[in-house]
Amino acid sequence: MALFKYECVIYVFLLLLSIISPSLSKVRPRFPLSIVRPEQLARISSNGVDKPYKTRYFTQTLDHFNFNPQSYQTFQQRYLVNDTYWGGAHKNAPIFVYTGNEGDIEWFTHNTGFMFENAPHFNALLVFIEHRYYGKSMPYGGNIEIAYENASTQGYLSSTQALADYATLILDLKKNLSAIDSPVVVFGGSYGGMLAAWFRLKYPHVAIGALASSSPILNFDNLTSPFSFNNIITQDFKSESENCYQVIKGSWSLIEDTANQPGGLEKLRSSFHICKNVTFTADDLASWLDTAYTYTSMTDYPTPSNFMNPLPAYPVKQMCKAIDNPKVGKDTFAKLYGAANIYFNYSGDAKCFDITSHLDTHGLDEWTWQACTEMIMQTDGNSKESMFPASTDNYQDRDTSCFDTYGVHPRPHWITTQFGGFDIQRVLRRYGSNIIFFNGIRDPWSGGGVLKNISSSLIAIVAKEGAHHVDLRYSTKEDPKWLKEVRELEIHHIRQWLSQYYHDLAHFSH
Amino acid sequence: MALFKYECVIYVFLLLLSIISPSLSKVRPRFPLSIVRPEQLARISSNGVDKPYKTRYFTQTLDHFNFNPQSYQTFQQRYLVNDTYWGGAHKNAPIFVYTGNEGDIEWFTHNTGFMFENAPHFNALLVFIEHRYYGKSMPYGGNIEIAYENASTQGYLSSTQALADYATLILDLKKNLSAIDSPVVVFGGSYGGMLAAWFRLKYPHVAIGALASSSPILNFDNLTSPFSFNNIITQDFKSESENCYQVIKGSWSLIEDTANQPGGLEKLRSSFHICKNVTFTADDLASWLDTAYTYTSMTDYPTPSNFMNPLPAYPVKQMCKAIDNPKVGKDTFAKLYGAANIYFNYSGDAKCFDITSHLDTHGLDEWTWQACTEMIMQTDGNSKESMFPASTDNYQDRDTSCFDTYGVHPRPHWITTQFGGFDIQRVLRRYGSNIIFFNGIRDPWSGGGVLKNISSSLIAIVAKEGAHHVDLRYSTKEDPKWLKEVRELEIHHIRQWLSQYYHDLAHFSH
Repeated sequence: MALFKYECVIYVFLLLLSIISPSLSKVRPRFPLSIVRPEQLARISSNGVDKPYKTRYFTQTLDHFNFNPQSYQTFQQRYLVNDTYWGGAHKNAPIFVYTGNEGDIEWFTHNTGFMFENAPHFNALLVFIEHRYYGKSMPYGGNIEIAYENASTQGYLSSTQALADYATLILDLKKNLSAIDSPVVVFGGSYGGMLAAWFRLKYPHVAIGALASSSPILNFDNLTSPFSFNNIITQDFKSESENCYQVIKGSWSLIEDTANQPGGLEKLRSSFHICKNVTFTADDLASWLDTAYTYTSMTDYPTPSNFMNPLPAYPVKQMCKAIDNPKVGKDTFAKLYGAANIYFNYSGDAKCFDITSHLDTHGLDEWTWQACTEMIMQTDGNSKESMFPASTDNYQDRDTSCFDTYGVHPRPHWITTQFGGFDIQRVLRRYGSNIIFFNGIRDPWSGGGVLKNISSSLIAIVAKEGAHHVDLRYSTKEDPKWLKEVRELEIHHIRQWLSQYYHDLAHFSH
Repeated sequence: MALFKYECVIYVFLLLLSIISPSLSKVRPRFPLSIVRPEQLARISSNGVDKPYKTRYFTQTLDHFNFNPQSYQTFQQRYLVNDTYWGGAHKNAPIFVYTGNEGDIEWFTHNTGFMFENAPHFNALLVFIEHRYYGKSMPYGGNIEIAYENASTQGYLSSTQALADYATLILDLKKNLSAIDSPVVVFGGSYGGMLAAWFRLKYPHVAIGALASSSPILNFDNLTSPFSFNNIITQDFKSESENCYQVIKGSWSLIEDTANQPGGLEKLRSSFHICKNVTFTADDLASWLDTAYTYTSMTDYPTPSNFMNPLPAYPVKQMCKAIDNPKVGKDTFAKLYGAANIYFNYSGDAKCFDITSHLDTHGLDEWTWQACTEMIMQTDGNSKESMFPASTDNYQDRDTSCFDTYGVHPRPHWITTQFGGFDIQRVLRRYGSNIIFFNGIRDPWSGGGVLKNISSSLIAIVAKEGAHHVDLRYSTKEDPKWLKEVRELEIHHIRQWLSQYYHDLAHFSH
């Protein structure tokens, strides 16, 4: 049952991913996805009793930044606590906080083995805070129907409110634990990583440092190329084989042409083992394939993983192998089917596919709202070299679609106004400290990441072979050397921040 | 006419000051007051034509931090621009921005001669931005009646919204001027100084540094003693003469006792030259005297000034002289009257006083709203040594009064949650840069100021003999050496920030 529950969550996230070949609606925004491995979930939460954390709730203010009477409304914000390894307030032992992102916090907790594995070495208290409007942290008495009813009720879902939530909760928690002097380090991956980095920048009095893993804080406001996301996916596949890249690149028009021919859809149904009762279009198929390529690229981990279905180590390589050396049939569709099978059916259990099921929009509201208001991330462009058809990242389309859906317009410059981003190397060279930006270059989100050191304590760790916040995952015996080194380096920096903190505590006390 | 207008503004501010002897309502909050010298106003704006700035308006977002449909409402935010000395965008010449505080921006502009006097040396563009809900920067189509109607319309008046206004306006202005690379330095005094410091802390990507003059950012949340404000006033008077202090300290019970005797109020009327038609209480008189002492203490400038009425140089000294060597009569009331006369009637024109007129509450709404929501500054305590009667800074009273008035409760921990303050020496030791905190120790607000250097670029400049943001005032020939040195030191640091910026610009360009 527990597993089923997480599968549902995963499914929602996959839906959010459901990307957007150019012939599909281009205005459904991509978003930074967080990855979970259910086998790890199983390990730490095979039943409700053994969960390695206690669940707590905090009475949170609905709007921190204005003082309208309705801003004083409160909601119950969920957070999870593990104090197994904590050295205690009397020792000023550290507190590691995960700044929750767009989903159920249990999911991210299970997905961040790095914190569990390192807590004993630091005698750290672990706290995982759920992001407002996700999971069980729903305003309006927990009533999701009201919370998502319209722009008036949903309007309080924003990154700045979430960051203020974290500050408020952490300060209150420290007070209640009489742990005022316990240093806080924040951790996050993907959107959670963006929040972790921004939290250290905006609340240096609350967190002494941040590990921001795969946080594409530069995917805004034309700071980086709108082609980067798809270029990196393309590069991932091209690096495995030129043929693999060419086959995929050539397939989109072939699919469309075939679908337009008499009997063409039935041919596609047969080639891709699409279930008989499923009505579909060429766009649905393109989207299904796009999902497989994109998601596989993001999770191109060096060890086997198990997200929706089991995936082998280096799944992009396996996909290209399926294309380069097809087992059944030599035509393009057979090759693509073999590749998609890696992602959708590695276990081999599925007899046919409902390629339209993931296009259901249920559950998309949460992130889409954010992507329609402030998270105007530019990732939908495809250059001529892309393995996807050429396209631009069209802001006007998004604006129209968002306004049609929610009745409010995006604020495309807000994130850079509030958090910066332009000339980040120059701006932060003499400002701020203690942030690690990790990026794996095989992760399409690395295109919006900080890839160069900014100063001696604003550090970029770049793993050429890494994928989406691979560093935060549970370690395995098969982890390659580079991944072990990444984690060691991260630990080294965190240890240094703490050491400086304790030094300062001794010399600059109250 | 212009002068009359400023007198009105000044009057509002004096009202805000109208403080609060312990027998008065203790819940009317004090606030950081900004000081203006009307003779300077006269100098730079004797008529509407010669104002040394152009008036501009910017279409500003009502609520930056949520996305409710009503948050998208806009208002016209006023800002003033002087480009006489600007070196221009092509030279990346700097932009000096005043972060407006609680009042008409023209008033603060006239009050910040420091910026005008230094613009030529830096080839700086000058910009003075008005704070939302003050002056002409009124939401709801400029309709002040609606803007202040209730907590729902007034709720968007907050420091965080104001800071986001400044960031939004500055970035837009730089874009329109094609001056993306022009460095911005922010300036502010009093509450405006708090905003300047916080702006550099929260928006380092917008401003390269801040001069925060007399900004009591530590008067919150028991960070500093609630007795400090009145202790400093006490010390100012005591430092002139022990007798002066003792006379004032002993007078409060004498006033109360006298008022309680038959014919006592008439005796007080006669002693203090209170106009015949004025009905008053002992509290009114105490408040009138408190205003004189407090305001004189804040504006204990080394040169003659002219606020409500002309004041001599070092007016506290003159007050104590009036008490120690009374010209007319030797009783306590005659001495106090002589002292009050320095402040209320230095010109000698007034024949009698309406001591109740400044207790009118008209115009108090703006700052009182802020003091009832987030600006929970603790300055009302009086220790045993205070020259005012002993009292505590009673939060519960304030909470009750604020809720009665506005229907919303204060959030006493919000400012420290959002902006920090606890252990500021430790927290900012390894974080942030380029802020000057100026404080004059004779200014009661210096009790909440940053008085020690935090790091090599978070600098405290402390003037033992200084009063409330004396550094920002127009220079005069009579300025003492220490004041000249303070300004030179400030200029030195600002020059250094700019020099570093241009160095970085050359080496870390787009």
